[in-house]
Amino acid sequence: MTEEKDYVIGIDMGGTNTEFAIVNARGDILGHNSIPTTGHADIREYIKKIYDGVMEIADRTGTRGHIRGIGAGVPCANRETGCIEVSTNLPWPSPIPLEELLSDAFGLPAVISNDANAAAAGEMAYGRARGLKNFIMITLGTGVGSGIVCDGHLLSGSRGFAGELGHVIVNPDSDRMCGCGRRGCLETYCSAGGVVRTALEILSTRKEDSLLRDIDPARLTSKDVYKAALRGDALACEIFDFTGKVLGKACADFAAFTDPEAIILFGGVAKAGNLIARPLREAMEEKALHLYKDRIQVVASSLNDAEAALLGASALAWNNGD
Amino acid sequence: MTEEKDYVIGIDMGGTNTEFAIVNARGDILGHNSIPTTGHADIREYIKKIYDGVMEIADRTGTRGHIRGIGAGVPCANRETGCIEVSTNLPWPSPIPLEELLSDAFGLPAVISNDANAAAAGEMAYGRARGLKNFIMITLGTGVGSGIVCDGHLLSGSRGFAGELGHVIVNPDSDRMCGCGRRGCLETYCSAGGVVRTALEILSTRKEDSLLRDIDPARLTSKDVYKAALRGDALACEIFDFTGKVLGKACADFAAFTDPEAIILFGGVAKAGNLIARPLREAMEEKALHLYKDRIQVVASSLNDAEAALLGASALAWNNGD
Repeated sequence: MTEEKDYVIGIDMGGTNTEFAIVNARGDILGHNSIPTTGHADIREYIKKIYDGVMEIADRTGTRGHIRGIGAGVPCANRETGCIEVSTNLPWPSPIPLEELLSDAFGLPAVISNDANAAAAGEMAYGRARGLKNFIMITLGTGVGSGIVCDGHLLSGSRGFAGELGHVIVNPDSDRMCGCGRRGCLETYCSAGGVVRTALEILSTRKEDSLLRDIDPARLTSKDVYKAALRGDALACEIFDFTGKVLGKACADFAAFTDPEAIILFGGVAKAGNLIARPLREAMEEKALHLYKDRIQVVASSLNDAEAALLGASALAWNNGD
Repeated sequence: MTEEKDYVIGIDMGGTNTEFAIVNARGDILGHNSIPTTGHADIREYIKKIYDGVMEIADRTGTRGHIRGIGAGVPCANRETGCIEVSTNLPWPSPIPLEELLSDAFGLPAVISNDANAAAAGEMAYGRARGLKNFIMITLGTGVGSGIVCDGHLLSGSRGFAGELGHVIVNPDSDRMCGCGRRGCLETYCSAGGVVRTALEILSTRKEDSLLRDIDPARLTSKDVYKAALRGDALACEIFDFTGKVLGKACADFAAFTDPEAIILFGGVAKAGNLIARPLREAMEEKALHLYKDRIQVVASSLNDAEAALLGASALAWNNGD
């Protein structure tokens, strides 16, 4: 054991549970645990329980005194202020000065960020993006999020809201209403729900047979579409093809922002692999400005799903204050 | 006179002339001069002449020995390699390792960048964006260029081609062919030529009287449209209104990238002032995600046109190597 600060703490704060772990520079989780997010007298008690839980792990793994800092992945984190701005799923009034509370409790530097930014940090510290200085991480799940790394730096913006690429308008004439209150956002096409919307549109306007016709349309999920596509269902494949193309056209424009080396895909919808990555790549190459053609890799995240949120959060701590 | 390195050299390399100046931290040009870009035996002789010209200014202004570095604004500069990649307008074979050549000749650090990035650096060092850490500079001239500053850093990207926002596709169904070989780029709407295209479209599809109908359509310029708008010509005002709205919708999406505090406009078309900035602002506010509403200033560059290119180039030198 050296005196080096070779470990970081990752905290993944969800509406139900809060997970925490101690992680080394290779992205190995030395120990982890969780507590419920709700049911505490106040936020200080909640933070105290995280502290106790982390210190138990630190003692068990011999890492106490060797921890560099804390990273926390939190919805609606404002990196600029270190606060949770709007906490629809959390039991405390916002804004919550989480960075300060964590930093005071642990006596260590703390940084908070939203999930997609944390995922990008995790990918850069431990995953596919290791060594990459310019990439865009796109998370395709319930929503579409993104974390943008340019010139080796995870973009934050004036209030920490850089990289909301799920809410770029990809079709101004679309009738797809987004959760944000506008129409035609990337998220309405490439989230899990977006895939289902495309499926329902295609199923209702087309006549061909499809395994998807056996499923109650009100219960259809993007996973059903994926399973059908794996079984060679032509319409299911077409649904992913359409989804990938929408994303690819958007990525062609994204390239003009930050001249990235790679687009990295993460999240439930990204599990469709080449069903979505191939049309993405093709549409991006077809639409991109010559400067960006044949230059941008499209790859899936290499982080393990179950660990990605914790690893991403922990990764935020490595560069904090450097 | 202190021993501080309080001055920088700015070089603006055009196809015809190369201008150079010594500039202080307030953006005052202490002295400037120019040489023809062509007609030299080789690139070393050209660099030598720039060196001699700059040193003449340095001796005259007592700044020799107090110069921190060199910034050069150059078309098609690759900031990553320090080379001019493709020099359609320059008399030497590319790639041209300009950074190295300048640095060797002067014994000072040198950095090159394209015009729009230099303009953003100039705005940040001496202009409206002083103190701003997050803004997008959009240059509306023969082309549409941009320089993106996020978290206090001028984005470069994997090969220095970050910020080509003139080539974001704003209308995929457009029949407007762009110089880049694609259709519907922002540049085809918001450059000087884009304004003329809009004017010709509106004049041919509409019946109303307009001062613009007195001008030979083959010779119509964006300046003519501006002059007519200043005289209250309704169609001319509508042309700028349309141009501003296209740019405003695009800026609503740009906000989702870098969460900027300001959009700063520069270049010939930006001289239309509120004729373009007002519809820009309105369309951006109408289309932007709630996170960005009522947050982003739209302002004109405060740099003097004649000096902007030189100042921008010089500004690149202030942060180089920090």
